[in-house]
Amino acid sequence: MTEHSLTEEIRQIGRRARNAARMVMSASPAVKAQALTILAELLRTRQAEILAANTLDVQAAATAGMDPARLDRLAMTPAVLAAMAEACLQVAAMPDPVGVIETQWQRPNGLLVGKMRVPLGVVAMIFESRPNVTIDAAILCLKAGNAVILRGGSEAIRSNLALAALLHESLKRSGLPPDAVQVLDMTDRAAVTELCRLDEYVDVMIPRGGESLVRAVCAAATMPVLKHYMGVCHLYVDEGADPDMALALAFNGKVQRPGVCNALECLLVHEKEAPAFLPRMAERLGAAGVTFKACPRSLPLLGASALPLQPEDCGREFGDLTLAVLVVDSLDAALAHIDRYGSRHSEVICTNNHAHAMRFVREADASFTAVNASTRFNDGGQLGLGAEIGISTSKLHAYGPMGVRELTTAKFVAFGSGQIRE
Amino acid sequence: MTEHSLTEEIRQIGRRARNAARMVMSASPAVKAQALTILAELLRTRQAEILAANTLDVQAAATAGMDPARLDRLAMTPAVLAAMAEACLQVAAMPDPVGVIETQWQRPNGLLVGKMRVPLGVVAMIFESRPNVTIDAAILCLKAGNAVILRGGSEAIRSNLALAALLHESLKRSGLPPDAVQVLDMTDRAAVTELCRLDEYVDVMIPRGGESLVRAVCAAATMPVLKHYMGVCHLYVDEGADPDMALALAFNGKVQRPGVCNALECLLVHEKEAPAFLPRMAERLGAAGVTFKACPRSLPLLGASALPLQPEDCGREFGDLTLAVLVVDSLDAALAHIDRYGSRHSEVICTNNHAHAMRFVREADASFTAVNASTRFNDGGQLGLGAEIGISTSKLHAYGPMGVRELTTAKFVAFGSGQIRE
Repeated sequence: MTEHSLTEEIRQIGRRARNAARMVMSASPAVKAQALTILAELLRTRQAEILAANTLDVQAAATAGMDPARLDRLAMTPAVLAAMAEACLQVAAMPDPVGVIETQWQRPNGLLVGKMRVPLGVVAMIFESRPNVTIDAAILCLKAGNAVILRGGSEAIRSNLALAALLHESLKRSGLPPDAVQVLDMTDRAAVTELCRLDEYVDVMIPRGGESLVRAVCAAATMPVLKHYMGVCHLYVDEGADPDMALALAFNGKVQRPGVCNALECLLVHEKEAPAFLPRMAERLGAAGVTFKACPRSLPLLGASALPLQPEDCGREFGDLTLAVLVVDSLDAALAHIDRYGSRHSEVICTNNHAHAMRFVREADASFTAVNASTRFNDGGQLGLGAEIGISTSKLHAYGPMGVRELTTAKFVAFGSGQIRE
Repeated sequence: MTEHSLTEEIRQIGRRARNAARMVMSASPAVKAQALTILAELLRTRQAEILAANTLDVQAAATAGMDPARLDRLAMTPAVLAAMAEACLQVAAMPDPVGVIETQWQRPNGLLVGKMRVPLGVVAMIFESRPNVTIDAAILCLKAGNAVILRGGSEAIRSNLALAALLHESLKRSGLPPDAVQVLDMTDRAAVTELCRLDEYVDVMIPRGGESLVRAVCAAATMPVLKHYMGVCHLYVDEGADPDMALALAFNGKVQRPGVCNALECLLVHEKEAPAFLPRMAERLGAAGVTFKACPRSLPLLGASALPLQPEDCGREFGDLTLAVLVVDSLDAALAHIDRYGSRHSEVICTNNHAHAMRFVREADASFTAVNASTRFNDGGQLGLGAEIGISTSKLHAYGPMGVRELTTAKFVAFGSGQIRE
């Protein structure tokens, strides 16, 4: 495709999304719920065509030499489809956020003022690999009354287009415009660049994927971006913390799923706890395959296989079973370390000291700060938002997991009886 | 100053703001309120030095040929200073937003999850003319726990630096870092360009001023921008509306203060009301000096001085006593006009029809939609937010008047007893 025709094609997609957004914005809650219910049914009855398309994607990716971890994330199964259908029904059953007046107050002149939740308009999402993101993003945007443009990775293109066919059928059967969800079949980088220039039609861009994708979209986008950078998450084991609890939190944070953004990357231990805690920790996590990068004070406590911590290991998202370990003097030292090296994602303290708990929760600068709980809970499903469209690590608009509510905004509404300004 | 040293100087300002932000973020509500109370006192006791500095600004501006309307906005009086002091006391008395957990819920595993209001960090604001913005922005940012960098217009530089001296004294006397409020003494455009590149230190940029300033900042800024574009505000007079009320709303919207963003620019009148309403409206508003740009159907109803509406008059912010007038067939036609030509600022319907009122309030796409009230109410003070730092016409983060709350964000906090993820 020539550059000129690609630009025009993407602009037409933007215009169609804007027109669809006008209709979806005022669709009734019942109509939107119906579309989601029909989609759930189609994900069951037309399983075979989705799995067939996915098999072609997986075969092509395997031939191209994709590594097993990524292949595993690409592959869909009947269980994956059943979970998608379940997500559709859950989102359908959630209260519709659009048009709700959340708070109201009255002015001295009798003007009744409120804030009403309204859709953002057109959302564009650029993501990689997992085809379930296609369904999650589409159903959350639809529930929030937005139109969405989805551009998934080339490796999942057949799966995504097969899912798009079901999405379009569910929209049509509910009387909603099929352009409310557009899945791009253009998988080259140029299409991403063009999307990033579409500020006339797109209200917000959401990149979800590796750091290079997120950085490229942030640099190119002319509209606001809700970004999800890397997660460099810490657990601070305070003086007097319950060592069994601290051990369970460290194990869960690092071992349960080391590749994700809310996994634990760095353990900070108070110097009073280190001598007893660190050898136990090293034994338990070491048995699960964890290797340690240790500061000079923790190195002697972590066994022969521990390596010395390098300067670049602080603030690093290892993405595997590597854990940085540092001994600190105090809560203040732990907070200072997090302030310097954290990525504003997920920060946890294990403590029995109430004042320390409250200080940590307030002062650690992250989208999720917690006491005596695993970093792995920083997730829309785990926190009770229903499905999520990503985890924002920037502070504007949304900070942390973004669900349906974060795909809306609030405008001021006022009901008067002829009030004028004096 | 060479370009290199300007870059370095601005970067140092950014670093100092970031360091100050860490301290202000955890300042207690009492300390912040004390700083605001001291500032109110200084604005009274040191009136003379502020007024002397302002007189120099006004004299210089008059010599340079500034027009009387702008000179009037630049000039400060004892009454203006008293109003500033009052604003400080009002903001001091408001509830402190920082650290408040607004909602909490419990997960099935017992994890208590909440959303806590936290500061944004460092705010940078670039604005023109009126020196009271310096105080409004500084006190709102301080209350919200942010550090702020303020860059006002060159015409107000002496006034702004005199106000900065009082701000610094109030911060110091409260034990807060003076760098929490930095007023730039660099008034050239290059300083704005450098500020726009300071994303390492600045969390959000707020331009407030003319359209060219806002567009320039949006184009150059590498951090999120909360923008305040022009206001193209409509009043739709529905079939069956109370004509006296409609007249009062039109008069108030257009005449009370025609130069501001929430003034009325375009009147849409239902065809059934037009024959009786428009001649009355033309007489009343005409007597106040309003001139009309009329569509073919309204032109014969508006008297001899009305001019034919030109295509560019739709969607235009006149900023003076000019009003566009169109006759429309229906509520749908009015909404379609607003959708096409509105600027997402303030849209009002005058109606007695409940279904039309609710449809208009929901469907008009603007930061403020109202029934039977003047467009002029789209203002932080009028809506009850206390002081405002601007009116956002973009939907991300804030939409409409931005007060203290909009200068914070909300993070997830969780209180557990050792929960791990299964």
